[in-house]
Amino acid sequence: MGRWEPGARERLQGAALSLYSGKGFEVTTVAEIAQAAGLTERTFYRHFADKREVLFAIYDEFTQPFLDGIEDAPRDARPIDVMAAAVARASGFFTAERQPYSRARQGVITDNPELHERELLKLASLAATLATALRERGVPEPSATLSAEMGVTVYRVSFEMWIADGESRPMADIASGVFAELGALTAPA
Amino acid sequence: MGRWEPGARERLQGAALSLYSGKGFEVTTVAEIAQAAGLTERTFYRHFADKREVLFAIYDEFTQPFLDGIEDAPRDARPIDVMAAAVARASGFFTAERQPYSRARQGVITDNPELHERELLKLASLAATLATALRERGVPEPSATLSAEMGVTVYRVSFEMWIADGESRPMADIASGVFAELGALTAPA
Repeated sequence: MGRWEPGARERLQGAALSLYSGKGFEVTTVAEIAQAAGLTERTFYRHFADKREVLFAIYDEFTQPFLDGIEDAPRDARPIDVMAAAVARASGFFTAERQPYSRARQGVITDNPELHERELLKLASLAATLATALRERGVPEPSATLSAEMGVTVYRVSFEMWIADGESRPMADIASGVFAELGALTAPA
Repeated sequence: MGRWEPGARERLQGAALSLYSGKGFEVTTVAEIAQAAGLTERTFYRHFADKREVLFAIYDEFTQPFLDGIEDAPRDARPIDVMAAAVARASGFFTAERQPYSRARQGVITDNPELHERELLKLASLAATLATALRERGVPEPSATLSAEMGVTVYRVSFEMWIADGESRPMADIASGVFAELGALTAPA
């Protein structure tokens, strides 16, 4: 088995999720995940620190689209519009093909308090990263933190709507509607 | 020493914070906290599950003012105004007398990643509790979650401003300004 097995990372993620959904996260071992993916434990540990991180590695992947969305927004865009652009860009990560994986992943996380806590911490860390990116664009505090937190909240709410049974709209359309809802909520009375 | 030592809880909280600030959270033991408070370890464990919970027990105390603010808001108030009322009510917890304690506590938490994570989870749990209270008032989703998350974000940002060196405005005034900022951020362009 080669050191750089092509697609190893994705195969490990898929195998892990199948086992977590089937027999449960707690009782699944790294050895079982590696075996189900046709890889060695050694290869597993080249990609992931532990069996929990298999589920959270996606944050490494989709933080960048958020940051790209912030960077590409017009210089004079309002902070909330910059965040809307960031969420729209990140929504591209959640394709229709990814929907079954995302649903299964969320099921595993919802069933396990430790994983649920880990998810909340990853989201908080994402918001802090995006607030820093806004400050680097010159957005002052508290606007930077307020905007970043609102953006991550809209993303989270939109994601939960997107993975609901029967939902077929693209994530970007859902997020756009949730941003409109946010604007209506905070509009002057 | 009586089973229900008057003020035991507050004495333990004060003693713990002094030790955490002075010698550090990691190296402080429950025995030292109890001794510094002039109480037994047994009394400590009647009030707190462990040395970490001494710092987070305040969430049990100030979640109620948030909920009272929601309950007492006019039935026809908009969700965001209900949250503003909740944050204003909870701000009453943060009196000028409490400012030194709050500053010291935040210093300990900021210095320790595990405590910082615990704080983020407590805030996420507070937001979920407030979203439930809004739904019980008839606020639909996603408005309930969006409003609760915005309220907790405003609270958090306001708290950080309130404990800054030299800050002397009441927390309620700061929070009111941050809510206004939020409105300006999301106002139609």
